[in-house]
Parts: sequence; C-alpha cells; structure tokens
Amino acid sequence: MKNEYIKTDPWRIIEDKWRPERMKASESLFSIGNGAMGGRGNFEEAYSGPSLQGNYIGGVYYPDKTRVGWWKNGYPEYFAKVLNSAFWIGIDVKVGGVQIDLAKLPVSDFRRELDMKRGVLTRTFTVEVPGVGKVRCEAVRFVSMARTELGAIRYSVTPLNGEASVELRPYIDADVRNEDANYNEKFWEEVSATENSVTMRTLKTGFEVCWAQESETIKKGKTTTLYKYVGICSSLNHAREDLQKAAERVAFDARKAGFDAMLVEQEKAWAEKWATCDIVIEGDDEAQQGIRYCIFMLLQTYTGRDSRLNIGPKGFTGEKYGGSTYWDTEAYCIPFYLATQGEEVARQLLLYRYNQLDKAIENAAKLGFKNGAALYPMVTMNGEECHNEWEITFEEIHRNGSIAFAIYNYVRYTGDVGYLAEFGVPVLVGIARFWAQRATWSEAKKAWVILGVTGPNEYENNVNNNWFTNYIARWCLDYAREVAGDVISKEEAEQWSKIAAGIYLPEEKELGIFLQQDGYMDKEQTLVRDLDPRERPINQKWSWDRILRSPFIKQADVLQGLYYFQDRFDRATIERNFRFYEARTVHESSLSPCVHAILAARIGDVDKAYEMYLRASRLDLDDYNHENEEGCHITSMAGSWLSVVEGFGGMRVVGDELTFDAVLPPGWEALSFKVVHRGRVVSVRIDKSGVVIK
Amino acid sequence: MKNEYIKTDPWRIIEDKWRPERMKASESLFSIGNGAMGGRGNFEEAYSGPSLQGNYIGGVYYPDKTRVGWWKNGYPEYFAKVLNSAFWIGIDVKVGGVQIDLAKLPVSDFRRELDMKRGVLTRTFTVEVPGVGKVRCEAVRFVSMARTELGAIRYSVTPLNGEASVELRPYIDADVRNEDANYNEKFWEEVSATENSVTMRTLKTGFEVCWAQESETIKKGKTTTLYKYVGICSSLNHAREDLQKAAERVAFDARKAGFDAMLVEQEKAWAEKWATCDIVIEGDDEAQQGIRYCIFMLLQTYTGRDSRLNIGPKGFTGEKYGGSTYWDTEAYCIPFYLATQGEEVARQLLLYRYNQLDKAIENAAKLGFKNGAALYPMVTMNGEECHNEWEITFEEIHRNGSIAFAIYNYVRYTGDVGYLAEFGVPVLVGIARFWAQRATWSEAKKAWVILGVTGPNEYENNVNNNWFTNYIARWCLDYAREVAGDVISKEEAEQWSKIAAGIYLPEEKELGIFLQQDGYMDKEQTLVRDLDPRERPINQKWSWDRILRSPFIKQADVLQGLYYFQDRFDRATIERNFRFYEARTVHESSLSPCVHAILAARIGDVDKAYEMYLRASRLDLDDYNHENEEGCHITSMAGSWLSVVEGFGGMRVVGDELTFDAVLPPGWEALSFKVVHRGRVVSVRIDKSGVVIK
Repeated sequence: MKNEYIKTDPWRIIEDKWRPERMKASESLFSIGNGAMGGRGNFEEAYSGPSLQGNYIGGVYYPDKTRVGWWKNGYPEYFAKVLNSAFWIGIDVKVGGVQIDLAKLPVSDFRRELDMKRGVLTRTFTVEVPGVGKVRCEAVRFVSMARTELGAIRYSVTPLNGEASVELRPYIDADVRNEDANYNEKFWEEVSATENSVTMRTLKTGFEVCWAQESETIKKGKTTTLYKYVGICSSLNHAREDLQKAAERVAFDARKAGFDAMLVEQEKAWAEKWATCDIVIEGDDEAQQGIRYCIFMLLQTYTGRDSRLNIGPKGFTGEKYGGSTYWDTEAYCIPFYLATQGEEVARQLLLYRYNQLDKAIENAAKLGFKNGAALYPMVTMNGEECHNEWEITFEEIHRNGSIAFAIYNYVRYTGDVGYLAEFGVPVLVGIARFWAQRATWSEAKKAWVILGVTGPNEYENNVNNNWFTNYIARWCLDYAREVAGDVISKEEAEQWSKIAAGIYLPEEKELGIFLQQDGYMDKEQTLVRDLDPRERPINQKWSWDRILRSPFIKQADVLQGLYYFQDRFDRATIERNFRFYEARTVHESSLSPCVHAILAARIGDVDKAYEMYLRASRLDLDDYNHENEEGCHITSMAGSWLSVVEGFGGMRVVGDELTFDAVLPPGWEALSFKVVHRGRVVSVRIDKSGVVIK
Repeated sequence: MKNEYIKTDPWRIIEDKWRPERMKASESLFSIGNGAMGGRGNFEEAYSGPSLQGNYIGGVYYPDKTRVGWWKNGYPEYFAKVLNSAFWIGIDVKVGGVQIDLAKLPVSDFRRELDMKRGVLTRTFTVEVPGVGKVRCEAVRFVSMARTELGAIRYSVTPLNGEASVELRPYIDADVRNEDANYNEKFWEEVSATENSVTMRTLKTGFEVCWAQESETIKKGKTTTLYKYVGICSSLNHAREDLQKAAERVAFDARKAGFDAMLVEQEKAWAEKWATCDIVIEGDDEAQQGIRYCIFMLLQTYTGRDSRLNIGPKGFTGEKYGGSTYWDTEAYCIPFYLATQGEEVARQLLLYRYNQLDKAIENAAKLGFKNGAALYPMVTMNGEECHNEWEITFEEIHRNGSIAFAIYNYVRYTGDVGYLAEFGVPVLVGIARFWAQRATWSEAKKAWVILGVTGPNEYENNVNNNWFTNYIARWCLDYAREVAGDVISKEEAEQWSKIAAGIYLPEEKELGIFLQQDGYMDKEQTLVRDLDPRERPINQKWSWDRILRSPFIKQADVLQGLYYFQDRFDRATIERNFRFYEARTVHESSLSPCVHAILAARIGDVDKAYEMYLRASRLDLDDYNHENEEGCHITSMAGSWLSVVEGFGGMRVVGDELTFDAVLPPGWEALSFKVVHRGRVVSVRIDKSGVVIK
C-alpha cells in the first residue's frame, strides 16, 4: 500500500517526483492551516492543469439550497458549506516574458516538502523556459500559528542559463467558486477593492472578509525574491468598518518585521504545540511519519481559540462534507485535544454544543419532541441541521449519546465539576429528555424500545433497538439524572429512571454477545473473509439494498459501545463481541479501525491491533481509499492517535489518575508519548523492558 | 366535502362559475384524451393567469437527468418523463383588435362542461371587451377516439353589442417546457416548420412528432366560427420522413369530412366503449357522477391498442410521476380493463411487461441477482428503472408479485392458457428466480426470510418479513413452478418448492392476525381515532422518522394480500385482520380505500364499505387532498370501479364462471353494471329485491 511517491521521514512529508496526475491528491496532503484558516497545497504561480483550489476560513459558511430527489417532511432548507474563499497565494511569475505554468513547461527536480515540526511548506523545482533555459524556483509558505490572520510567502526565481527578466506580481483572486455547489451558484459578492486589498461578503450569511497584501521584491545576484504577506480578517473578529484597516495592519506589521522573524515565530509556536503532544515510535519510520502527520493535521485544523469553530471531517483540506461538524468531534477528536492541548481547548469544543443547545431543542421540536428535548444535528455549522437523508438526519440519533458522553469524558479527565454544573447539565438534560420521549413502551417486549434508528454502522438503516443506541440512551438517562439535581422534577427523574431500568438491550445469549439490533441474527451469517476481494469495497460494488440486508458492518457499532464503556465489561465479554463483530466489519468508514485497534490491544491481540492501527494511521499518506483528491480524513486522524495512546499505550482514567496498560507492536522498539493531565505533562515511554512514566 | 363549484349530473362534469383561482385544478378535471394522446383542459385563447399547460403523447418521453442529494449505488442515471408537447389547441382571438384573455377582461356566464357520454369538452363564456362590449364565445373540443391522431376544435365568437371585427388565428406553439424538469432543461428541438405544421424531436430519445393544422373560418350572421383540425403523428407509428405528410393528411381528411362528421364518429366510438362498461347507480347522483368520471377517465387514458403504452398515475392530466408505469397497472387497472374492455386490452398490458422482461433481468443483475432473475422496475417508461429512492427503488419489491398475480388473474378470468404458456411463463420464471434468490435462510428462525423491504404500506421502510411480500413471494414460487413445466430444471423446481414451503409468515397468534412485518407489535398501539385531526394528513404534518416509527399505515398492506387471495381465507380471518388494520390505516394513498371497501363488503360491513368507497370515487371531483392542480388520480380510479363491481357487486371468478355476492349501500335504490366475460357482455342489476344477471 505504501505510496511510492511520498518519502518516509520522521518529521517531513516529502514528494520528490513531478507527478501532475497526482496533483489534487498532493494538494490535499500538503494542506496548511492554523486553526483559524487554512488551504490546500496549491501552487502560487499559474497552473493550468487539473487542480482543486481551496482556501478556507473557519466559521465562514454559506447555506447552499438543499438538493434532493424526493423531499421528505422535516428536511432542512439548506446545507451549510465551508467556502472556498479568495486565492490569496497568487503570484504571477514571468521569466523572459514567459508565464511560468508547470502544466505547460518541462519540469525537473521537483520537490515539495511539508515540515511538520515548523509548519512550513516548501516547494522547489526547475523549469525549462523557452528562450531562457532552465530556471530554478523556490516557494516557502506558511499560515502563521502565532498571528492567526497572517499568511506569508517567499518566492525566489533564479535563471540558471544566464540573464533573463524576472517579473513577480503578487495578487489576490477573490473571484472563486465552490466545486461543490448544488446549483452552481456563486457564494460571494464583492464589497470593495483597492490595488492591494479586496473585501468580499458571503451571500445570505453576510460574513465579510478582507484580504490585504504587502510585498517586496529583492534581487540578489541572479536570484529575484518576492516576499508576500497577506492579512486575512473576517467579520467574525472585527467590526465590518474596520476590516480593511485590520487586514492591512496585519500585512504591514509582518512586512515590517520581515519574513525570517515571522518564520521564527512560527517555529516557536509549533514547538510549543509539539511539546505536549508528540509521539515517538522507534523502529518504524512509516508509523512514525503517519502518527506525526495525524497530530500535525489535527493541530492545524483546530486550536481551541474560538468556541464558534469546530472540526470539519476534511478540515481545511477540501470542500467535502461541507466543513461542518459531525459527531466525529465528540467521539474521536475531543479525547485527543483533551489529552494533548489541555482542558481549555476541549472545553471550547464542548461549549460549541452548549451554545447550540437552543437550536438542538428547536431541531427536536421540528421532529415532534416537546418540553425542551434536544436533538443535536447530524451535520451542522451554526447549530441548525444541514443534512438531508432521512435515515441519517432523523435516525442516526446516537450522536446525541456521544455528545453527552464527551461531557462525562471531559469531567472524568479534568475533574472540572464547575463546567458540568454550569454548562454540562443543561445539555445533558435536553438530551435525556429526548431519549425519554424517543423510547416507547413495547407491550410485546414488556420493555422500553427505540425504534427506527441508524446506528454508528450506517450499513443498516431504520432498524429497531440498535444496541449501541439503546445502551448509550440508558447511560444518558442515568448520568443526566445523577448530575441534574434540582434542574429536573422528581417525577421527571423517576420517569427517566423507569425507562433506563427497563430499556431493551438485544443479546444473543447462546453466543454470549450483544446484538447489533433486532433481527441481526436473521441475516446470512457470512463473514468478511468469505467476500470476494473483487467485490470490495462493497459500497462501491454493491447496490444499497444489498449492503443493507448483508451482515457486513461499515464501522464499529456494538464495539463502539464497548470502547466507550470498557470499564463496565469484563475482558471475556469484550473478546467474544470483538471476535464476532470484527469478522463481519468491512471498515469502510475511516472511523472504524481505531476502535478495533484499541479493543484488540485491550484483549491482548497485538497483531490485530497493529493491523487495525496501520489501516488508520497512513490512510491519507498512502491514499488507501483512492479519495485523497477530495481532502484528508482529519477527524479519523484523531482515531489514529487514540489507537496509539489508548490502544498500545493503554491509557485509562481511573479516578483522578491516568493508568497505562501498555503493549508494544512486535516491530516497534519503543513508543514514547506525552499527554497533558490536570495541568501536568505526562511523558510515557514504553519499550521491551517496560513502561516509564514521568 | 362536496366541491361546490362542480355540478352534480349523471353524465357531465359541469363548472358553471368563473373561478380563476381554481384554474389549475379545473384544467386537470377537464382533461381529454383518446389513449394515444391527451391534454389538460387549457383554454384555446390566450390566458395570462396561473395555468399548467399540458399536452401529452403516449409513449413519447425524455430521460431527465437524475437529481438526488446523496447518490446511492445502483441509482439510475435518469428519470423518464412524459413530455409536455406542442400546445396544439392555440387560437389567437381578437375582437375589435383586443386580444381575448380571461385573466384581463371581465367574464360572465362562464361554463365548462365535459360530456362523458360523447367525450366532448365545451366551454362558453361572455367577456366584456373594451370598445366592443359583451362578446359571447363558445369552444367545443375533442381528441378523436375514432381517429387517434386527430384533435378538433370549433370556436365561435359573437359580439352581442353590435358589430365588431373578429380575428381568429389558429396556431401551434411547440416552444414548450415541462414544469417538472430537474435541471430546467428543454426537452425538445425543432426539426422543421411550415406555416401550418411543425416537427419536433425529443432530445436524447429522438422521438419525432409532427403537428399539422387545417382550419376554416365561417361567418354566419353576427357569429364568426373557426374550425381547427390538427393531425398529430409521431415516429412511434410513422417513418420519420413521412411524418409531416401523415399529419397533414389527418388534418386534411378531417376538414374535408367536417366537424359535425367527426363529432358523430366520436359519439359512436364512445357509445361502443360505454356499451360494455357502464355503471348505473340509482338514488345517488353524486356516486353516479363519480363512478362514471372514473370509468371515463380510464377509457381516455388507455385503450389497449398499443402494447408500448401503459397507464401513468396521472394519465394525460398532468406531469406528476412522470407519466410512467407503476404496479398500479397490475394491481388496480388490469382487472378494470379485463372486465370492461375485453381480454385483448388487458393482454396488451401484460405484453408490455413481457416485452420488458430482458430489462427486468438486467435490472435485477444490477442489484446482484443472477441466472435470469427478474426485478421489474418500480417506475418505468421503457423497462428501465427510473426511480431513485433506495427504500422504494430497491426495496419495494412486492411489485414483482403483483405483476405475476396479474398474469394469474388474467388467465383465471379468460381461460387463455395459450397466453400463459407463451408469454406468461417466461415472466413468472424470471420473477420466481428473483424471489428464490432474494429469500435467505435464517438459522435463527429456521425459515426463509425476506429482509430489507418496503411493503405496499410505504410508511414503513427497510423492514424484515413484510407479510404481504413474503406471502406473494411464496405464491409466485408455487404458481411459477406449477406452470413452468420443462422450462425449469427439477433442481430449480425443488429449490422453489423448499423455499415456498419454508417461508416465514409473521403472525400475532393471540390476536389471530397476520403481522404486517417483524416487530410491528413493538410499536405504540395507538389508533387512527386517537390522532388529533390537526395532525392529519400525517405525511404533511409529521417528519418522516415519526411516520416510520408510528403504527400508522398509509395504504392496505396485509389487507392487499387478503384481497388478492380472498378465496384462501375464511371470513373470520379476514374480519379480524380488517378490524385490526383498518383502525391503523390513514389511507394517505389514493390506492388504499378501494381495497378496504371490497373487504368491508365481503365481511358484510356495508357502512364501512360505503365510507371507503366515497373516499375513493370522488377523490378528484371533490379535490379531497387539495392536489388536483397536479392532475387526476387515474390509476386509483380503477380502484373505485373495483369497489363497486367486486365490492358491492361481489363479483368473483369461480372456475369458468362469474359469481356475484352483492350488497347494496343503504342510500342506493339499484346498482347496474356490465362486464365482459369470455366474449359475452354480462349485465348485472342489484336492487333491494335481489340480483338479476343477464
């Protein structure tokens, strides 16, 4: 699977061949960001070949009108999308009067390098220019982690075969579109423009953003170098009337301080980030590069400075999934940020949902729920539901469970009971009210049932009594009741208690397993190993009905529940369920293998854990699913981190302490990682002789 | 519910008020057709108010590119749509130089009348023309049942307040669009045009149609009359190079013979139709008008001359549902045509599916089925699936059962075993092969199960073991095996036999009922009578998930099976199931009440039968669902006929004979109807003294 054109290196992603046919995939891999904004690894100079331009600003979105074949009652009117915004990196490069365009001129010695330690993207290449000969170029670019409204570029051109005129004209092109637009509409309109700035406004949502550039050109010997600094300021953080001034100020200050000073700041900011979260794998460079890439991309995507922001599944690397928030955040990302970036960062992610509670209550009301019941959206930007597949939008309600669980997880890890009381309880109560209304009494089963749901395994739709959903619903009712205190009445508490006690949890007693949902055992019990490899991935080869009635599981479902609630199940129970479900799981979601890796490590199956870990950690670097063009799988990168720290590292919270029950994959000499816990950096080193914790 | 602006009359539909706000609904009601073509009751003269222009030619369609929100594997690339085609009725009317447009001028004495006995649409009105005064107009229009490529109009204008110039300019406007176009594309391009003709070609499908007009204007006293004859010929029936000549010939011949001669032909053709199918209800004029309207519309929509044609749910009255073929044809329409128009007509409808068998096999192969298994499409024009909702397209597979059942029904009624052997068996074998592969062995249930289906009740999706589906699958396997003879191997016959014998049929034994699907009794057992009337229809008031997990049934499901197989169940079983499911059925499909009416009559509940019958028979005339604008419910009109003949008339086939087990609704003095059976017209008269059959 190893991607031959990406070199293995512990700290860098290196592409050292000119592979224009991989352009879009490379643009995804070489994306850079600073939590507030980011963009794909596009070229600064003109490029007329296939390319997906992408520059995104966190929190600036557009509600694209919904497109469906057959409208269902309750569908939202729009799908909020992250916006491709102005192409701020543009430099028109002419040598000897010829425009440099790598799609049109012969290229040699091409190299692109993303330095993850420093957060800097460097590209060098030689191009053969008609009438000029060979020309060497170098582009160095970063978006500043220290100054979150700044992007900076150093672009050098050196004619190698004698003198030639070199023109470097920096520009900002705000006339851009989303590739993913339901009705091919434009999402931006111009507010104003000057020679070195442009202010744009999003249609409908009315966000305003100003891009302002400063530049200087220096000629030294045969080399001409352009320094370009762009200030990018949005109405999220500035008054509209101040936008242009603010952006100009950012650019001006940067130019004044100079590129090298900005680089130093950048290195320092990144060094601080890495200090609390690096993972060192000795003896396995590919795994080393893979996990650092995951951590690096997560840190680029979200920094926790702003509770209005969240983590889109593709981060700043593509348009897919609209850049919106999914339950991925709670299930996978929060544990990562909590353990590496500290509780303030994780807290911002929790506050994001707290701030959207009213909309979650409105959303539930639209579906017929009452009295403050809250259903968080499946996909959202501002708290309103965006998605429009009934089996997901209305039925994949387990997301509510993960949102509640994240609060519990945060409190357990941090001990921050103040947060729980003030911000946690209202969310938990809204969610518990939803479950209490969503469960119905079955006279046939003499139990509370939850009908018509889609579990984490989206290869089943509209099923009854999904074990994971019912289990987490029960847990939510109990936890909310325990912590709600006087917020709820005695009657309500009793009702929750009654439902939780009587909720139906399907089991297959003979096999000693929990049953994914009612009727699962009616399916043909074929296994993944029985599948013809030519029929995989089944989501590309089979029609949807065939997938639905097959026993095959897209992603961890019962196992997701066993992962969340590991301390409630003994090892034998976990093992029986793991063996049963692992044999049926095709892992066609990037979010699946990490959970299997953690549980496999838990039951001592290191080989299986390592197999699952590999599937996850280099998913994008090795373009496992041939879909890198669309962007990287940012949220599942958090799953890779979980595989290492909670899987091989065996980290668990026990009371106020962290414990580590470690196992080392056979090929690894040592594994070291750092986590932050209650204000202290904990260093863990695991090698064949044991575990050392500092 | 009675629609106050439609007058009750046994043979005519009469609108005698000027109700422009009802324009689109009236256009639907006053549609005319001749099986080959038809159109909505639009005005000949200009009308600038809200209107839905619609003129349709059977068999001429366009594959509109599919629109979905989220693509699922297996979806078809397009949805074939009936085409709004040239507006051939156009007459530009000017009096005293002023264009007549009822949306702009004062109107009085407006009357529109559809004579169902003769198939003629007449409209009269007086309009106040500035500078001229009152002007009386009369428009008489029909599409010829005798000459199926002819449409004819007589349009008279009489200034009432003295002399005024009258200009009547006939025209054909081929520059038309579908209101229902997924991407607002045009579906037609012009091939050629002359002063009095235009030939158009459909994009993609390349059908060609020529419209040619002949006209003459006669002035008699103060009245100016235009006679307009339009020949409409398509490449379905003519070589392309002959189209224009053929259309001109049709128009020329008609003009030569004259309007009155054409009218006489029309009356004669309709008299022949009515001779074999009229229903007379004494003592209930509304019911009389309702049932005649149903019969009239069915006869206008389909005549059985051409096995390439079928019956779209809206016939020639609107664009909705694309004018495509659904299982409505087999479940509701075939029994009507079989009993009223003779076996040749019903046979054409069966041949339509026979001719599309190869495509049904391809369709099944696309979903992973093998060895000649056939899955007929849910929605089709030419045999290819058009629909794109996974829960319908891939899962509403019971349609295959009704397509098989229609063959059985036809053979039972006609005794035409020759058809069965030659054309029936290949279809039955393809369908049985599908069921044999679609059923899977459940080790848990020790039975063959059918997972992941949508039954006739579309308010449940992706359920397991829908009783109707499993029952009709079993029946298909048995019937196909019995009639297939040497066409199948002994092994295949044994396999079918094994599956049929072991198929799982869910029951609720305590209540003595068949269970709609696995888990139905887990639902909250609330009843339709418990529903707040403000929450109805639930398909407009509730979100889809709420509907799905509710116990409410859209249309007859288990009861559809009991209707098909009445002779296999005793009255007590039918009654128990009827009581249980009727209490839970909201009848939000126009196809539901007729089945309930028939079964209610069967168990002797005449009041319930009558209530159900009323819901169906005047559905469009009284615009019960406020959706008349979109067109009339043509296929469910066949259900109204079934309610009368099989319900109140109690008609059944027993061996080679028809039997009648009649009951009369309290308000009816007598019910008489005719059916054709094995070449003879059978007249039935039921009154309080008994049943007389001739």
